[in-house]
Amino acid sequence: MTSSHISVNASSERLVTRLIDDAARFSVDITRTDGGTVIVDAGVSAKGSVDTGILIARICMGGLGRVARRVAFDHAPLWPSFIEVHTSHPVVACLASQYAGWSLSATKEQTGGKKFFSLGSGPARALACKEPLFDELGYRDRHDRGALVMEVDRLPPQVVIDKVLKDCGLAPEQLVIAVTPTHSVAGTVQVVARVVEVALHKTHVLGVSLSEIVEGSGSAPLPPPAPDGIQAMGRTNDAILYGGRVHLTVRSDAVAKRLAAELPSSNARDYGRPFADIFTSFNYDFYQIDPALFAPAEVWISSLESGATYHGGKVDRALLEAQWSAT
Amino acid sequence: MTSSHISVNASSERLVTRLIDDAARFSVDITRTDGGTVIVDAGVSAKGSVDTGILIARICMGGLGRVARRVAFDHAPLWPSFIEVHTSHPVVACLASQYAGWSLSATKEQTGGKKFFSLGSGPARALACKEPLFDELGYRDRHDRGALVMEVDRLPPQVVIDKVLKDCGLAPEQLVIAVTPTHSVAGTVQVVARVVEVALHKTHVLGVSLSEIVEGSGSAPLPPPAPDGIQAMGRTNDAILYGGRVHLTVRSDAVAKRLAAELPSSNARDYGRPFADIFTSFNYDFYQIDPALFAPAEVWISSLESGATYHGGKVDRALLEAQWSAT
Amino acid sequence: MTSSHISVNASSERLVTRLIDDAARFSVDITRTDGGTVIVDAGVSAKGSVDTGILIARICMGGLGRVARRVAFDHAPLWPSFIEVHTSHPVVACLASQYAGWSLSATKEQTGGKKFFSLGSGPARALACKEPLFDELGYRDRHDRGALVMEVDRLPPQVVIDKVLKDCGLAPEQLVIAVTPTHSVAGTVQVVARVVEVALHKTHVLGVSLSEIVEGSGSAPLPPPAPDGIQAMGRTNDAILYGGRVHLTVRSDAVAKRLAAELPSSNARDYGRPFADIFTSFNYDFYQIDPALFAPAEVWISSLESGATYHGGKVDRALLEAQWSAT
Repeated sequence: MTSSHISVNASSERLVTRLIDDAARFSVDITRTDGGTVIVDAGVSAKGSVDTGILIARICMGGLGRVARRVAFDHAPLWPSFIEVHTSHPVVACLASQYAGWSLSATKEQTGGKKFFSLGSGPARALACKEPLFDELGYRDRHDRGALVMEVDRLPPQVVIDKVLKDCGLAPEQLVIAVTPTHSVAGTVQVVARVVEVALHKTHVLGVSLSEIVEGSGSAPLPPPAPDGIQAMGRTNDAILYGGRVHLTVRSDAVAKRLAAELPSSNARDYGRPFADIFTSFNYDFYQIDPALFAPAEVWISSLESGATYHGGKVDRALLEAQWSAT
Repeated sequence: MTSSHISVNASSERLVTRLIDDAARFSVDITRTDGGTVIVDAGVSAKGSVDTGILIARICMGGLGRVARRVAFDHAPLWPSFIEVHTSHPVVACLASQYAGWSLSATKEQTGGKKFFSLGSGPARALACKEPLFDELGYRDRHDRGALVMEVDRLPPQVVIDKVLKDCGLAPEQLVIAVTPTHSVAGTVQVVARVVEVALHKTHVLGVSLSEIVEGSGSAPLPPPAPDGIQAMGRTNDAILYGGRVHLTVRSDAVAKRLAAELPSSNARDYGRPFADIFTSFNYDFYQIDPALFAPAEVWISSLESGATYHGGKVDRALLEAQWSAT
Repeated sequence: MTSSHISVNASSERLVTRLIDDAARFSVDITRTDGGTVIVDAGVSAKGSVDTGILIARICMGGLGRVARRVAFDHAPLWPSFIEVHTSHPVVACLASQYAGWSLSATKEQTGGKKFFSLGSGPARALACKEPLFDELGYRDRHDRGALVMEVDRLPPQVVIDKVLKDCGLAPEQLVIAVTPTHSVAGTVQVVARVVEVALHKTHVLGVSLSEIVEGSGSAPLPPPAPDGIQAMGRTNDAILYGGRVHLTVRSDAVAKRLAAELPSSNARDYGRPFADIFTSFNYDFYQIDPALFAPAEVWISSLESGATYHGGKVDRALLEAQWSAT
């Protein structure tokens, strides 16, 4: 895999620099810990913006993806605004970098205050390689700078920063952490921009070899954040589960056929209800939800072996409108 | 407002430099006054182009917007080409910079020839702050360079340039003026690219506080210029009034609901006829036209307070086709 | 024509440098001949990618076009992914640079192995100007570096490289050649990205003066490559002939009207069957195919003279689906 020669932290460094240098433009607050670690607040106290979320999504993909906001031109659009994502390095960009797979927590005793929990995503994950997923990816980054994104509603405590530094093998001033709460504008954008990543992760859950996947593109409608935390999380999930569309190119025809059938969210037991309802009905226990639900609504899978393209699933316009549109 | 820390003239300087340095590519003619002010002819004698209009539109937005040309992909597109606009700083980009609100005129005596009149738009407006609008915006730029766009069919006389220099507090060599006639290709593009600005301005006319507005996106079909001046002006207006779509994000739910109802052009008394017909019927007296007409055809307004999105208005495909399509 | 002052080799040099410097990211293999000519393998042994094909398409257009991958947002999209192309210098970008018009061949004796044949495209063509087309274009580039693209399934022999160097007046280390086999991912992309070029070339075949053409935009659906060579070639042709849409702006109304009627592929005798079938039915003799077939499926032609836009042709969704979609 040629991708293994690419450093996701090096490829995204230019974008991280832009986020810091243009802090006013991106409506983020920059602070530095005593050690020199840069913390970018993109939605806790700072306002952030859609552009901020897009830049953070590009950082999250290790600089190996294109992410943009679009407006619909067709007669009766599903939704006025979309996030569009493309990558020619889907496995490295989405799974080795963008996937929010690094659990970072601290007890009350450690923080000297409230318990802290966040999932870390972005290129620094590939420096630490603490997740079993990395064994399967066969990808490890080496770079003297790193960037991590945390989807959480407060800045990380020093104990968590220290853990990240140690696991990544970075000195304090070599790490940048961007914080994007779920209910913020930038947070909503960077989660909706995971539409291709979600498809990749489910492909992995289905047991398909990741070496099958060659190209990935996708889109999902961009709602405003919901003010309520559970609703905000539900909304970004609904954008992908009921509004997400992904086009993957894979190597073998058998995999293309299988993914078109099994990848869409409609395969899941819990499919058909808004995510916040599902989550609430399971008493906020994430692990009770059928993992097959975490997938795009509609997929096209092209096979390099045969040149054929298989199609599966469909967007659920009625569900999105009922959730998001005022009447 | 974080935007108040951003200089629209500094943010657009790189784009202005590109327009001048790549004059051949942008098919513009560059001249310098004796004092050193750079005049960019983008459609008087020079040919200009769609790309030129897009670059000038980005300059007009003070470097704080994304502007691009798109083609439609859907089955029966409204129109083959569109201009798409996005900004995470809608008030500063559109009202403090892009809005054509600075009246610049000179008498026959002053020009030593023909009377001159043009509306100035672009970032230099925010250096001069001659318009009452700036009191409400609470935004004023400070920068040692400035760029102004004039939608007029000839180059500005020295007396007008001198007025701009004085009001902006710039030395002659610190000012760049781009001239885009209404009937030119670049002029058509940069006016159609005002689709979000038009929505912002009407929001202001409706008395809604500008601090409500957080994000703006929009699109409008891009027709070729009409050869006749009145028809050319009518055409760019029709693109927005009957073909423009805007998605705004605002703070409060009440404002979102109100804007969805009141913002679309269909609220205006004169709605339903081509703009050139309306203008002609009022004997070319702009001020007889119902100001409520200057608005996009269709809007979606998302509220951060509730997370709901309100929808109002609709594109009038039949009117645009009757005006623009040959049969 | 202002375009005559622009160097397509200078304008694309930055893109060529990126392709070489980011070889790992673009999944290309870089080799240098003894003399120092850089050969970029984008699909012979190397993997290449969609992003690679897009970058090579931009190089092919002499840096004067915008090329991007898009996903469709409408309710029932024709196809999930598209290539979108825009240029404000259609004649120079498409015909003086992108058109694959330079026949480059070598006999068995010359190669010391297999006979070699490839059509050369890209900006170096405009240094050599070996094709009669250049007399009509009135365009000739002068630059001390050049880039050529070859759509062929092996690297070019030294004798062909030497011919290119001599005809372009370049020293060996001043030339870069990118090789994109038809059946590769990058090759598919860079051919589909010729949708506007195909419209320009047919305009020329129809005898319309090229000075008529002012702006060009277009799109075509992007299929995966077909594994078989004839099918791969058929597929990229079908993308344009049955799925391509182009919007041109021309000067005169008569030309606009004529092109809307005569430009679409549906005017050709052989229209209506997949290209691979047609090609096979003529015993792989390209010159037996009605040249009128090489055109986009659907066109809009806007006239600067009248401001009217003429429409002709239509996309053949059923043919594309029957060819490309698995059932």
